[in-house]
Formats: sequence, C-alpha cells, structure tokens
Amino acid sequence: MNIILLSGGSGKRLWPLSNDVRSKQFIKIFKNEQGAYDSMVQRVYSQIKAIDADARVTIATSEAQVSSIKNQLGKEVGISIEPCRRDTFPAIALASYYLADELKVDESEPVVVCPVDPYVDASYFEALKALSELARTGEGMTLMGIEPTYPSEKYGYIIPENAEKVSAVTTFKEKPTEAVAREYIEKGALWNGGIFAFKLSYMLNIGRELTGYGSYRELFDNYGSLNKISFDYAVVEKEKNLRVMRFAGQWKDLGTWNTLTEAMDENILGNGMMNEECENVHIINEMDVPILAMGLKDVVISASPDGILVSDKVQSSYIKPFVDGIDQRIMYAETSWGNFKIIDVEADSLTVKVTLKKGNSMKYHSHKHRDEVWTVVEGRGKTLVDGTEREVTVGDVVRLPKGCKHTITAVTDIRLIEVQYGSEISVEDKEVFDIN
Amino acid sequence: MNIILLSGGSGKRLWPLSNDVRSKQFIKIFKNEQGAYDSMVQRVYSQIKAIDADARVTIATSEAQVSSIKNQLGKEVGISIEPCRRDTFPAIALASYYLADELKVDESEPVVVCPVDPYVDASYFEALKALSELARTGEGMTLMGIEPTYPSEKYGYIIPENAEKVSAVTTFKEKPTEAVAREYIEKGALWNGGIFAFKLSYMLNIGRELTGYGSYRELFDNYGSLNKISFDYAVVEKEKNLRVMRFAGQWKDLGTWNTLTEAMDENILGNGMMNEECENVHIINEMDVPILAMGLKDVVISASPDGILVSDKVQSSYIKPFVDGIDQRIMYAETSWGNFKIIDVEADSLTVKVTLKKGNSMKYHSHKHRDEVWTVVEGRGKTLVDGTEREVTVGDVVRLPKGCKHTITAVTDIRLIEVQYGSEISVEDKEVFDIN
Repeated sequence: MNIILLSGGSGKRLWPLSNDVRSKQFIKIFKNEQGAYDSMVQRVYSQIKAIDADARVTIATSEAQVSSIKNQLGKEVGISIEPCRRDTFPAIALASYYLADELKVDESEPVVVCPVDPYVDASYFEALKALSELARTGEGMTLMGIEPTYPSEKYGYIIPENAEKVSAVTTFKEKPTEAVAREYIEKGALWNGGIFAFKLSYMLNIGRELTGYGSYRELFDNYGSLNKISFDYAVVEKEKNLRVMRFAGQWKDLGTWNTLTEAMDENILGNGMMNEECENVHIINEMDVPILAMGLKDVVISASPDGILVSDKVQSSYIKPFVDGIDQRIMYAETSWGNFKIIDVEADSLTVKVTLKKGNSMKYHSHKHRDEVWTVVEGRGKTLVDGTEREVTVGDVVRLPKGCKHTITAVTDIRLIEVQYGSEISVEDKEVFDIN
Repeated sequence: MNIILLSGGSGKRLWPLSNDVRSKQFIKIFKNEQGAYDSMVQRVYSQIKAIDADARVTIATSEAQVSSIKNQLGKEVGISIEPCRRDTFPAIALASYYLADELKVDESEPVVVCPVDPYVDASYFEALKALSELARTGEGMTLMGIEPTYPSEKYGYIIPENAEKVSAVTTFKEKPTEAVAREYIEKGALWNGGIFAFKLSYMLNIGRELTGYGSYRELFDNYGSLNKISFDYAVVEKEKNLRVMRFAGQWKDLGTWNTLTEAMDENILGNGMMNEECENVHIINEMDVPILAMGLKDVVISASPDGILVSDKVQSSYIKPFVDGIDQRIMYAETSWGNFKIIDVEADSLTVKVTLKKGNSMKYHSHKHRDEVWTVVEGRGKTLVDGTEREVTVGDVVRLPKGCKHTITAVTDIRLIEVQYGSEISVEDKEVFDIN
C-alpha cells in the first residue's frame, strides 16, 4: 500500500502542548504496548505497519516538521516537503510527483491519502487497504465515507447514491447545522474525513493539467507560485467518476482538549496528583514540578514550558483567540539536531538547555549582539569556533564572544547549558555559514 | 507601643507559594498604595507604623525566617531569634527578655503580643494601643477578645463576666463544635485570637519562675532544654488577674487559599488570563509562563517554581496531607544574601540562577562531590577562590572544581548562572569555612 499522510500546520487548540513549531500530532500522549508514550504520528505509523509491514508511507508536510518526524519515526519514512503552505491540492500533487519521481513508484499503483491524525483502530487501516484495492481496479477516485455517530456540525457530508458498501456519489454537502445534519443522516449521508484513493497516474495527469508542471523538481521549484486551493474543491467535487466506501469503525478527530482527553488511557500524564473529589479531570504535565488538583469536575490541566491551561473541558474548544493573544517566546522545541529548552529569561540574559543527539551538529553560525558561554554537563562532543576544533566533555566551558562562528557536533548524545548575554537577545540575531 | 509579633513556622496550607523555607507571611499578595505587592508581614508592619510611628516592633521567630524578614522589612525591625522551635510560651518569654536586656526597655512599660499574620485594618491597631494602655495602668494580663461573626470551630473562646468593653474573664473554652460555639456566642463569648498585653516586669517574673533563667543570654543559651508549651496553657489559663477587651472590627485568619483569595484585591496576580465564563476564580502565578483559565467556578490556581495547585476553593483547606506527600527539592528561596532559583534539574547536573544583593556575600564554602561553573550575567562582584581574589563582571566565567573553597561578594547587585555537575548533587554536600 502507498499511503500519503497529510500533516497539517501548527494547531493552537492544544496549547500549551502545541505551538508554532510543535503541532498536535507530535505530542506524546498515547501509552503504547511497551508502556512508553506515542504521539498521534507514531501511533498512526505503527498502526499502518502492523497491518501492512511493506506499506510505503510518505508524509506530506512543511520543513518545520521534518525534525519532529525524523525524531519520532526515524529516517525510513518518506517525507514530501512543501516549500511553503499551499493547502491540500498542491500538497497532494507534490507528494504524488514525489512518489513517482523520487521513490519510483509505478504509475499504475494505487495511492491512499488521509490526514495524519485521526484516532482510529486497526479496522480503519484494514479499510484503507480495501480502499486501495478499489482504486487499483477502478478508475477515477474512491473516497472513504464515515458512518456518522451524531449529527456533527464539524464535518462535510458525502451523499451516496445507495446504502451499499461501495456506492457512487450523488453530491457533497458543506458543514451543516445540527438540524440539517440530522436530515442528511436520515438520507444515509456519510462524514467526509478527507480520505481518498486513486491510481498514481490519475493524480499525475491532474497535476500536469492544473499546475502545468510535469515533474517533482519542477513543481517543487515553482511551488510558491501555486494558488491555495483544497483537494476537495480542485479535484473531488469536479470528478464525475466518484465512488464512496462506507466505514463504520472507530474514527475520532482529536482536535480539542475535550476530545483528546477522551482518548487518553490514564487521567494523569506526567507529574500530577488529584484528590478523590476530582471527577473527569485530566492532567497532562510536561513540566518538572508537580501539579495537585483538588475538588475539580470536567477539567483539563495541561502544563508545558510554554504555559499552563486550566479549562472546563467543553470550554477548551474556545481556546484559540486567547492563545493567539499570547505573544510568547517558544520555550521548548525539537530541532533537526535534538532539542532546546529555555530555562531562564532575564532582560539581558537567556539560559538554554541544549541537547544534541549523537552524530548531529548545530548549523555553523554567529550572533551579532550577544555572547554565549557553553558548559557541557553530559556526554562528549567536538566544537568548531572560528575554524578551530576542540574536543569537549563534561565540565568543559566554551566561550563564544559576539561575532565568532561556532557549532558543536555530538560525539555521544551531549547536553550543555548555554548562557546568552547581551543587550539584544533575539532568535533573529543569527547568521549561518558553510563549513569549508 | 512595644509590640511582639509571633511569626510562626512553615505553613504547607498555602503550597506551592509556602514551603519549608518560605512561610505564608512572606508571600507578596496585597497591593499597596504604590501599586506594588506586600506580604502579610509587610502589611502588618506598615499598618503598625501608620498608627504609631514610634512603635517598637520585635518579631519572635526562628533563624530560618531572618533573611526574609530583613529582606522585606529592612534592618530596623527587632528580631528575637529562637534557637529552635519551642511553642509560644518560650518564644514570648525569650522576646520579653530580649526587650529588657538587648533593647533596654523599662520593665514598667507595657508590651503587646499578637500573631504576625492577621488580616486586619487600622481599627485593630488602634485597639492594640488601647490594650497597651490598659496593661500600663493595670496589673496581671489583658487579652483582646474578638466579637465572633459566625460560630467558628477553628478558634478557642473567651467567656467574659459581662458585656462591658473591658470585663474580667470567667473562663476559656477549647475549639468547640459549631452547635456549642453557637451556645457560647449567645452567652457573649469572644474569639481568642492570641492577643495579649502585660507589663514587661510581669512577664520577666513569670519567665524567671517557670524557666529558672534570669537573663536573655542565659535563656537563649538554654532554649533547647525548655519544654514545648503554649502561652495560653503555661500562663493565661493560670492567671487570676485577667481582663478582656472586646474588639468588633475586621479580623481574619488567612490560613487557607479560600480565605486568602477573599482578601485579594484582584483576581489575577502575575501572568494570567481568564475567559468570561470564569466565576470566582483566582490566579496567583509566580512563574514566568502564562496561565489561561477557562470556564472555571470557585477555583484557585497557584503556581510557583515548586509546583502548581488547581483547587476548588473549599477543598483547598484539605491540602496538607497531599503536600506532605510531595518530597521535592526547594526550587526557590530567599537567603541572607539574596535569593536562588533552580532553573533546571537533571540526574547529574543542576542549574541555578543566583542573585546577590549589593554588599552581600555567600558563605565561604566548598563541595566534595560536585564541580560548579559560574557565568556572571548582571552586575559586578569579587570572587574569592582558595584564597585568591578576582573582580568579575558580565560575561566572566568562574570555574569551581570539587574541593575548592569559594565565595562571591556583590559589589553591585549581581546575578549569575551556576551550573553544578557531578554524580552526587545534594544540598548536604557543603562545608563552610571562615575567611581569614
């Protein structure tokens, strides 16, 4: 099975665990069989591999997510990197070209496209396999329609011609009101979960037709000039040869704290306690310090280095405007070389804990307006400062005055405390160089 | 007026803002006229000074609180330091000897004793003045009795002989049930707030009689051998010559989050937001990151470097056993020389932000099992490492290998990031030396 997972942008609805550089699909929240915690991406990826060990998985995403994906899934997974965000049609077209040109997938093969973050069980992936086989043998496009469990206002609806397992599609409906949704459901309508399958050749033809570009390289280089347009609008709603396959298994969208906590196996994740008077309370704590909850009902508490949310579960759906109003420095992020955590902020200084994974390096860079001091507290590495190499280990101190070019390579996993000081400390103050 | 303020021990009921080294009376929570925030101690002290600028204020407390008191009240205030905790009778006896021997207060002068942390207005201090004058002209002991506002089970009761402003005392009653409290109140009983006045000579006589020690020095040196006994039990309940003065003004005990938040002028202290669906919610945030509250009712949220409490207000009274169960490093503390904040904890390293106030020094000390690196990020100072002095300023790095004796003196206010690393990092690993 060829599967393209669409990995969307930064979601603020799960603040403070998601932020501008960390999307909800990377939050580790689901207990796996080994007792460790998986993110949505990890959960979906291992579910696919369990059903089809040979599945060729490609994640369509932006550069910003590449580090997180590689950190969480390893280097095996295919990644189609969108040079900029251009909605789902360009993303799916680019990923299809990537399959054909970079991964050399035969044009006659079927491809399944779906979001990276549904909360589903194995039956969903069995259904994807069936969808893929339908696409292999049929023409045009095959969709998966989800049997509604309630008259949701959050989803678009697919109206099938009949109640068979696989049916032609009569029409699509936009997100309705609850009353209208009820009417649709009485007529046998299905939720549109953005799950499609087609032969690769089908998508390459449409890609050429709509973008004018014939190869992955060409499309990639001109990606910024494409219009923002959804796959539904550009392709699905215009296609005559459309079938929908019904799916009645578990399918949840974990887009808010309310729905996400419903999917959690335990009420406390991280350092937390609650008294017996707490009812339907969830604590998700990524900080080092304990959270104590007492006498609460239907409340989610979530804490990360970015902030602390305490919300009634239903109210948590309305978080976005409040989080938009928080103009805050990113306090924790995964990067291509490891991760960093800002541990102290003062007017003229900033202290950061930097962790590099074995074999990785920072970019070779300099700062105009700040000096830095590194103190290695774990592991071994090699620094390069203005062309001079030096081996460093626990206890070594590296002074990095303004203007000096510097990087560090992790010989083993390495951790250092970086103290920045100067009158203008900003993430913008960074110039990157090639090492020659 | 001579006034002894009894400053009690560490309260866990206001966790995470109070802890083993920081008592509730030092939490800055009350907005003053300048728009800054005062602690209970600061509020009471300035209230006394507003009523009687010449009042001689002595705080009876333990060594652990001396730094906080000096930081918050300056060096003018008298402090009677208890070498160890021995309940209120020894504490009041010691403070009385301190007044006589160290401050040379005449034995004929009256002394008022009361807790350091009542939430009161000016009328309370006017009443203390009146109490002091009663003690000046009378013999024995004069108490202040507070007119009950509800049948509390939290306080002892004083039964006066009559309803006059000043009356003899018939008897005392222990904390009653609500029903019994109701009966007491019908008979004109008053709350016993632990507020007494007497002539200094009276207390010195009792002190000699009950302890056998005749001077401040002697009592101080033998303090550890005294029995733990309350002033009520040792003195008040045995005294025949007892009067009580009624007080009907504001008097509140801010011992729980529920009562404390009632006294706050604003619902948010520190970095916090709440949506309009919040009702009777208080946020007290000492962390750098924002707290967002949504759709909560009757909830207090309190966050400090030690932890995060989210509690129904009534339930917050039952916090103690939970906090007793938290065995956690103190993450922030005020010291005699400034303050420290632990900003990162790893297995083999600890990062601390250390702030010294101008003119102060750490103790000259060494560690057996850890190395340290200081990076100065603000101000100027002078370090002493194994006998060698060095001037340091922003950007200077000081390496402190295991075993080296070291200290720093703040020439201006100074701030440094201290990185500790080693296999056994513990507060116990510290040897202190004299500088010669």
